[in-house]
Amino acid sequence: MPVSLVKESDVDVLVIGAGPAGLMCANALTQAGVNVRIVDKKPVKVEWGQADGIQPRTIEVLQSYGLAERLLKDGAQMHMAAFYSPGPNGGIARTARVKNIGHPTARYPFGMTLRQGSIEDIFLNSMASKGVEVERSTVPTHIELSTDDALLQDPQSYAVKVVLNREDVPDGMADKEIVHAKYVVGADGAHSWVRRTLGINMDGEQTDYIWGVLDIVPDTDFPDIRNRCSIHSTNGSCMIIPREGDVVRLYIQLTDADVRNVNTGRVDMSRCTPEKLLQTAKKSFYPYTMGAIGEVEWWTIYIIGQRVASQFSVNDRIFIAGDACHTHSPKAGQGMNASMNDTHNLSWKLAHVLRGQADFSLLKTYEFERRKYAQDLIDFDKRFSALFSGKPRTEHNQDGVSHEDFLQAFRTFGGFTSGIGIHYAESAIVNYNYQGLASGVAIGQRMGPQIVIRVADARPFDVQDLLPADTRFKILIFAGDLTEPEQREKLNLIALEMGKPEGFLEKYTPKGAARDAVFDIMTIGRSKKEDLNFTDVPDILLSHWSKVYVDDIDFTGTKGGKAYSTYGIGSAGAFVVVRPDQYVGMIAPLDRVKDLDRYFAGFMGQKRRGQGLWLYKP
Amino acid sequence: MPVSLVKESDVDVLVIGAGPAGLMCANALTQAGVNVRIVDKKPVKVEWGQADGIQPRTIEVLQSYGLAERLLKDGAQMHMAAFYSPGPNGGIARTARVKNIGHPTARYPFGMTLRQGSIEDIFLNSMASKGVEVERSTVPTHIELSTDDALLQDPQSYAVKVVLNREDVPDGMADKEIVHAKYVVGADGAHSWVRRTLGINMDGEQTDYIWGVLDIVPDTDFPDIRNRCSIHSTNGSCMIIPREGDVVRLYIQLTDADVRNVNTGRVDMSRCTPEKLLQTAKKSFYPYTMGAIGEVEWWTIYIIGQRVASQFSVNDRIFIAGDACHTHSPKAGQGMNASMNDTHNLSWKLAHVLRGQADFSLLKTYEFERRKYAQDLIDFDKRFSALFSGKPRTEHNQDGVSHEDFLQAFRTFGGFTSGIGIHYAESAIVNYNYQGLASGVAIGQRMGPQIVIRVADARPFDVQDLLPADTRFKILIFAGDLTEPEQREKLNLIALEMGKPEGFLEKYTPKGAARDAVFDIMTIGRSKKEDLNFTDVPDILLSHWSKVYVDDIDFTGTKGGKAYSTYGIGSAGAFVVVRPDQYVGMIAPLDRVKDLDRYFAGFMGQKRRGQGLWLYKP
Repeated sequence: MPVSLVKESDVDVLVIGAGPAGLMCANALTQAGVNVRIVDKKPVKVEWGQADGIQPRTIEVLQSYGLAERLLKDGAQMHMAAFYSPGPNGGIARTARVKNIGHPTARYPFGMTLRQGSIEDIFLNSMASKGVEVERSTVPTHIELSTDDALLQDPQSYAVKVVLNREDVPDGMADKEIVHAKYVVGADGAHSWVRRTLGINMDGEQTDYIWGVLDIVPDTDFPDIRNRCSIHSTNGSCMIIPREGDVVRLYIQLTDADVRNVNTGRVDMSRCTPEKLLQTAKKSFYPYTMGAIGEVEWWTIYIIGQRVASQFSVNDRIFIAGDACHTHSPKAGQGMNASMNDTHNLSWKLAHVLRGQADFSLLKTYEFERRKYAQDLIDFDKRFSALFSGKPRTEHNQDGVSHEDFLQAFRTFGGFTSGIGIHYAESAIVNYNYQGLASGVAIGQRMGPQIVIRVADARPFDVQDLLPADTRFKILIFAGDLTEPEQREKLNLIALEMGKPEGFLEKYTPKGAARDAVFDIMTIGRSKKEDLNFTDVPDILLSHWSKVYVDDIDFTGTKGGKAYSTYGIGSAGAFVVVRPDQYVGMIAPLDRVKDLDRYFAGFMGQKRRGQGLWLYKP
Repeated sequence: MPVSLVKESDVDVLVIGAGPAGLMCANALTQAGVNVRIVDKKPVKVEWGQADGIQPRTIEVLQSYGLAERLLKDGAQMHMAAFYSPGPNGGIARTARVKNIGHPTARYPFGMTLRQGSIEDIFLNSMASKGVEVERSTVPTHIELSTDDALLQDPQSYAVKVVLNREDVPDGMADKEIVHAKYVVGADGAHSWVRRTLGINMDGEQTDYIWGVLDIVPDTDFPDIRNRCSIHSTNGSCMIIPREGDVVRLYIQLTDADVRNVNTGRVDMSRCTPEKLLQTAKKSFYPYTMGAIGEVEWWTIYIIGQRVASQFSVNDRIFIAGDACHTHSPKAGQGMNASMNDTHNLSWKLAHVLRGQADFSLLKTYEFERRKYAQDLIDFDKRFSALFSGKPRTEHNQDGVSHEDFLQAFRTFGGFTSGIGIHYAESAIVNYNYQGLASGVAIGQRMGPQIVIRVADARPFDVQDLLPADTRFKILIFAGDLTEPEQREKLNLIALEMGKPEGFLEKYTPKGAARDAVFDIMTIGRSKKEDLNFTDVPDILLSHWSKVYVDDIDFTGTKGGKAYSTYGIGSAGAFVVVRPDQYVGMIAPLDRVKDLDRYFAGFMGQKRRGQGLWLYKP
């Protein structure tokens, strides 16, 4: 063995794995100003990967990082879903065309596809603008959590040791580095080295469903080739997911005979070719023609496995995220979305703890929120896959899956598949009190879109764009009609309360920092835009002229004016506190600034060990 | 004198001047694949220039080049206009807040500001992606049009000779280059060297109105500081144009005493300082406070001149564009818009002639269309400036300009100031027949925005985004309800007609070129999106699956379904031919493909001299 060069270094967060979960994490932390490194064992990034479906909620999340533009420009959009069942003449016939995304509050009411390489580029470019790059050909070989209790109790200590090997150094010499990290995020995929090394189990099982995937430029007379399409035929099932340009992805149901070795019973990739997959697909499409123009872009076969990791963190120091902690069928297009949303959930919490703004215990909410979601995902996937892989109901098979069954399931699961229905349970950061004050703002769910008008310049804004993923908590003061003296008086009292030295604003905003460094306060009134002046809002609530909005229709007469009614907020108004990840943390009446103080006291600042407030409701 | 190095070269188009007009030209030609060079005498580009107001129509134009994104992201938007007049207590009082853009069909219903440097960057980045850069410190010293008639008759000849001097070469040596160009565009500003060298006169006059301009970050309690604001006070007039970030531009009316030398009567910049301008502004704002935070960003004073060049081209070989052919007051925010739209009009014509697709005579329509517009602009500017510079009506001055006068003018001129009302007169490329078939599509004006649904994937699109500035003519077939056999039959007949060898499609599309290389044919039906298949449109009208649309509401239930009614198209349908610059060229009934043949025969292909069709209607 040649001599190794060993260096040692410190880092706040080390991210292992530069797929969607790892990149979302590294970019979020980079933008938050956190000291972060991200490594990947692959020498180059994946260009045309398996994961590429993007949910409506994920588009919202990317938009909250200012990154949706390119996605929306380059990706394919799926607005319509079409369903085909066995028709009268032995071929398929269309049974329905319906909207693809049923969720009523989707800001981007469509599914998207964009190849993984392009999605990763969006993050890579964003990080590069701050000087952070992925360190490739870098393999972790050892990970070790300190056993020193004092160290483990201190959120600022370098409690994790990781050994990294650089594999692309010349002359076969391994360039070894010992990294001391405060936190490690293992986003290293379904075969996660981090997970295996830590001995975390995957709970769940393999299914019997086998599917082939084929990306082609189709040559076809099939009229729904550019829609998300589910085909149940007597010759097998097939699903179409349109992709960028003229490419479509076909999911093709396979039988054991197609892929299993007759002797061993094991799946044998060599028994399958893209030509065979296409032949199988052709049968499902009859009487429509189906062929491929040019080369097959990409293909694979897979057996659905449905598993969730038994834990998502070790001592809130080492986290796993993405495929490393959940695997499931790709057909509902959830994989990459679940992965990116894991680290979207984790990143702001890490940033707050590392800055010393929030208590260490905040990190517990990551596993609490995301593991429950992953379990729900697997439950959904089991039901969806069974339906999808089932035989269609026909004259001769009355026990089969009917078109109505499938359409019903498609609609029922809409909130889930869109990603919008994700609902975090009650904890230190999700307080279910006062839900009635804003019945259309679901506590624990993401804040929905609505157009409001900025008072200073009458410019319409989507409320979601006032809630960027910038690690700040957003305090929305739905102040009612500010042309009424009573509501003005309420606002003055709020200003008075929030200015007190013992209040959350003074207490958790670092001395000398900008007034809106931790809490971004915005007032949303309810009157005509012509009748309100932004200069009427008390100074402490007005860190900038842009902080005052009104729920009114815009000058085109087509947008806005529905925020209070959609959010279910009455004329008395309400506080809505939105977490940095755009999820609603709490709601309170306007005369209860104290409830905000109490909410933030639950996780802001640093508690002494054993003195942290409750995190999980019994 | 040191020895000069002389080189010689050929180019299809030489653009002189890299301001907004020149860059629009060079970028449009670059994107069209035309061989173009652009030179500028300045060693570096202007960062914070005078021209920076962007009209709604100009945003549409940038969008048609795929360039509106950054503008919309970085620029300030003006949605509301506020008006102040002398109030009861000696100070000003608000008289109205109204929408800033009155034009009902504006796709972007707001004015914008973005500093000239950023606007120029948008073009520079776009050109750079195709390898074209501005050659700076490059001064034209000689321009000469060939006198050889045979050369002048041949649109492909290098009939213009220009001598360029590079000023930034070392050791004081001038690097001289003789450029032989087929066409030259002089976009070299108000003091245009091209115009002066060619001896083209500027017709018009100077006014007596003197204004100061001040860019500041204001410190004020004025509630309309972020709106476009007109202040008529007894202490002078003032106008606010909000800009990027927290900067606002103040236009401040000055008196002779403020700026003229008492002895000579000439304007003397040295009598003016930004502090004095701010002092003058302060008086107009009383009783509101007005100050500046930090340094003044930029300031100037100007006297309004209103002039139009007597001709815009010499032999359709050398063109002038932008400030080189029209100067006027900056207050209505027209300058940069008029400039960019000049070359937006010229570029596609140059591309068509250079490719040999269109007749040389097409170039005559540039002066015909743009000079008339420039004259209209000056007429408008005279009336607007007089109104704006006039004294306000008060108790003691009943002859002054009343708030109502001004508001009325603001509304009347809305179509003009938005840029949307621009209307080109009848010519070979604008045929006023059949206006009645689509009463909401004004022939000679830009095609208005409407949402239609793409049939293949139910995705909503703005019609304007189907009309990019890609030099192609767009043939929109408003085919009526294609679920009706009668309309289907009409479409089949159209396909038959358009497929004929003597028709425009076969005749003017080069052999071997893509089917949609010159004419982009799109069908827009009128039925429910669920009821139509794109595969039902005849092959010759279906160059791609994306070419079929339907006038229906989208899946959100909020967009679309108003195209036929807004465009005034009945159930029988109509052809609408849209020029490459998004202006409507002609309309025809669906059974008159021959009228399309005749329209294109008027300027496509190459005529023998003397055989060109009429260009200007008597």
